[in-house]
Amino acid sequence: MLSKSEIKYIQSLSHKKFREEEGLFLVEGVKMVEELIKDHLELIDKIYAVDEWIELHPAPFPSNVKVIRLEDFELSKISSQQTPQQVLALVRLPENTIKKYQPTGITLVLDQLQDPGNLGTIIRTCDWFGVNAIVCSPKTVDVFNPKVVQSAMGSVLRVPVYYTDLIDFFHQHDKIARYNAVLNGESIYTCKWIQPCFIIIGNESVGISKSIMELKSTNISIPKKGNAESLNAAVAASVILSAIVR
Amino acid sequence: MLSKSEIKYIQSLSHKKFREEEGLFLVEGVKMVEELIKDHLELIDKIYAVDEWIELHPAPFPSNVKVIRLEDFELSKISSQQTPQQVLALVRLPENTIKKYQPTGITLVLDQLQDPGNLGTIIRTCDWFGVNAIVCSPKTVDVFNPKVVQSAMGSVLRVPVYYTDLIDFFHQHDKIARYNAVLNGESIYTCKWIQPCFIIIGNESVGISKSIMELKSTNISIPKKGNAESLNAAVAASVILSAIVR
Repeated sequence: MLSKSEIKYIQSLSHKKFREEEGLFLVEGVKMVEELIKDHLELIDKIYAVDEWIELHPAPFPSNVKVIRLEDFELSKISSQQTPQQVLALVRLPENTIKKYQPTGITLVLDQLQDPGNLGTIIRTCDWFGVNAIVCSPKTVDVFNPKVVQSAMGSVLRVPVYYTDLIDFFHQHDKIARYNAVLNGESIYTCKWIQPCFIIIGNESVGISKSIMELKSTNISIPKKGNAESLNAAVAASVILSAIVR
Repeated sequence: MLSKSEIKYIQSLSHKKFREEEGLFLVEGVKMVEELIKDHLELIDKIYAVDEWIELHPAPFPSNVKVIRLEDFELSKISSQQTPQQVLALVRLPENTIKKYQPTGITLVLDQLQDPGNLGTIIRTCDWFGVNAIVCSPKTVDVFNPKVVQSAMGSVLRVPVYYTDLIDFFHQHDKIARYNAVLNGESIYTCKWIQPCFIIIGNESVGISKSIMELKSTNISIPKKGNAESLNAAVAASVILSAIVR
């Protein structure tokens, strides 16, 4: 039986402030916890699971991984999903420090992306297309937000996601080609891609910040044939990546 | 002041059964209602709005459009959004009958897509790339689900979305080229695209149904360079459409 304070503690990890204080984030669901055990056992702190899961996953786990049995109704309380799936893990935040990052190939840059589903989907797409890293402005949604983790599927620990001041970052790497995704740029189908490069995707409603647009870059667009005003940010990022790596 | 029964009535429209009984669906938010007034005034039944919106949108509306003033807390009750935005409209369901649909160009076909955000994003992408219509299996999520409407942005009334038995539909149009989006098909970058065509996207977890896979079609894939197991369904659809229309 989980105590009230333990439930509250786990729930608190849906907030960035507490994740950073505790150095932990949440991973949910049979498939994702399976991948975690396979690839990142060293990061797992605790596993909360119902009988059904425990029977299929007998010990031994390393001694530092505690497996805690709980009832369905308890899982519902600590889960951030509408339909909780058997298991939830507390996972140690990996240490991603941008200082060591040397951009090669494609780096995706996100300027104030707000929607957690979009960030998760973008991480998954980057993992598919072999993008090396994602660099985000400090105000972009946090990569360890439970909804980001969920929509990134297993990719959240495979693609490094960094947070930093973008203007500083561009100044540090001013030899690298920059491409701004905008609505009235050069067609992505005919544009000449230089690598290494930064592909910059802006906020869902206001696009790329003025201070970034003022830097010398190539403005690129996905040609429109129909009537929509814009594309979803994750879709735009994916279509652009596809045009580069094809 | 909204009555309890009126609140309940509006809330009920988040369920497909009630939408079909009443012939109405919900559209929320300043921007979307604005587009609706501009392009589909004839479909609007009622507008519920707070003072702020009403002041900026003075009458005259046609006499068949009732504008009802309400308080923020009332809007929160009838809204399906976490942060309601000033206005919500009850809109008459358009009559989309597939019988008259003659496939030309690209028709996107969705086999049991479940996630409303994915369907909405796909509608928006189809509107961007000029796809003529979307044909869905009967078990695909309903296009007038509030979350679909929201993520489709203004595109939900611009791209016709039909629901029908897909096997019957393919038999009726058996001269039209079919492409199945799968994980081990021909590269979308080198594949020869014939139009008119059907691009078939399967369910988020199990893919395209066996009965459809057994039909004679071309299997196509987005080549993978990294490690993700799969792509989000809306992303896959968008990347494929981009490869065809480029």
